[in-house]
Amino acid sequence: MEKQGIESKIQMKPSTFLNPVPVVMVSCGTMEKSNILTIAWAGTVNSEPPMLSISVRKERYSHDIIKESGVFAVNLVSRDLIRQTDYCGVKSGRNTDKFADLKLTKIAGEKTGVPMIGESPASMECRVKNFIELGSHDLFLAEIETVYVSKSLFDEKGAIDLRQADLVAYNHGEYYTLGDFHGFYGYSVASEDALKRRMRIK
Amino acid sequence: MEKQGIESKIQMKPSTFLNPVPVVMVSCGTMEKSNILTIAWAGTVNSEPPMLSISVRKERYSHDIIKESGVFAVNLVSRDLIRQTDYCGVKSGRNTDKFADLKLTKIAGEKTGVPMIGESPASMECRVKNFIELGSHDLFLAEIETVYVSKSLFDEKGAIDLRQADLVAYNHGEYYTLGDFHGFYGYSVASEDALKRRMRIK
Repeated sequence: MEKQGIESKIQMKPSTFLNPVPVVMVSCGTMEKSNILTIAWAGTVNSEPPMLSISVRKERYSHDIIKESGVFAVNLVSRDLIRQTDYCGVKSGRNTDKFADLKLTKIAGEKTGVPMIGESPASMECRVKNFIELGSHDLFLAEIETVYVSKSLFDEKGAIDLRQADLVAYNHGEYYTLGDFHGFYGYSVASEDALKRRMRIK
Repeated sequence: MEKQGIESKIQMKPSTFLNPVPVVMVSCGTMEKSNILTIAWAGTVNSEPPMLSISVRKERYSHDIIKESGVFAVNLVSRDLIRQTDYCGVKSGRNTDKFADLKLTKIAGEKTGVPMIGESPASMECRVKNFIELGSHDLFLAEIETVYVSKSLFDEKGAIDLRQADLVAYNHGEYYTLGDFHGFYGYSVASEDALKRRMRIK
């Protein structure tokens, strides 16, 4: 690789330049009165217990619903849900019922009763543990209480093959599906045996 | 789309199932004594001011360096940095100098003096504002103080074309570059004119 010093860079003003980031449909409310909002300011924050965070602008319709109920669901986005995801990011639940508009199936989460999106390849019920005001956004830190995965993603051995989900990332304001596979965690120091087994080398 | 009810799902025990997530090289320490660690538990958390979070296990070598100095840099990962990224995720800075091992160029951030990785397509200097213990991981919430972008990513009009960076996402323990472009934020409700201009339809 070519050496890259300071002369190869342009310094910009501070901005939210972390890329790519996830993009998920967050569902909230009750089975009767539900909403969906699209969130890209989301991330995993803890492994034991499993926790994730979402950041939500105070003025968004779902902000108070989540704050008051203390629960929400995170629904992953596959290739065939990109248009619906974008729609849920630009329309407000104040004015429309997005589940109805998009003909999405509601499933009640067992632990929280929160509505989840059946068409999503995987959904997580989340319970808010911390709430932090940061400025434009409020941060909800939440424990993941259940994970629901579509049966179609399990292979013949019963393992989850997440490549089948064709998941979507958000990159500088644009939606992309994942492309080429390059390796698994640890591949740079793995044995030849492990590489043969896991790098899908024929 | 086919309706997907609860009968199409398998309920699993709670796990960190948010996918895809970012994967970044976090650099820290001083220009003399630097380290790099790989982080997938990262995310944007606020827009004004721009903030991001990283979650770091207490036992990792860089944990105390970041906690004591209060600064770090986030370096984005392009296709040609995947092997180096994996290496920085499995090796500890207690035992080796990863900048030297990988022959990466150190650049000092102007605001914090923290070392950044010259070969990364974009780097952000970050200053820690909040610190929260969550269990296995500690969460650092940090303000982004500068963004450095490689000159090679600017197009002839002076706009950043981030597709040229060929960025990498982490998906269920595996590294993937981004694939197909599907739309920009708002495309589902955009005018025909905006679609023609921004959807790259010839």
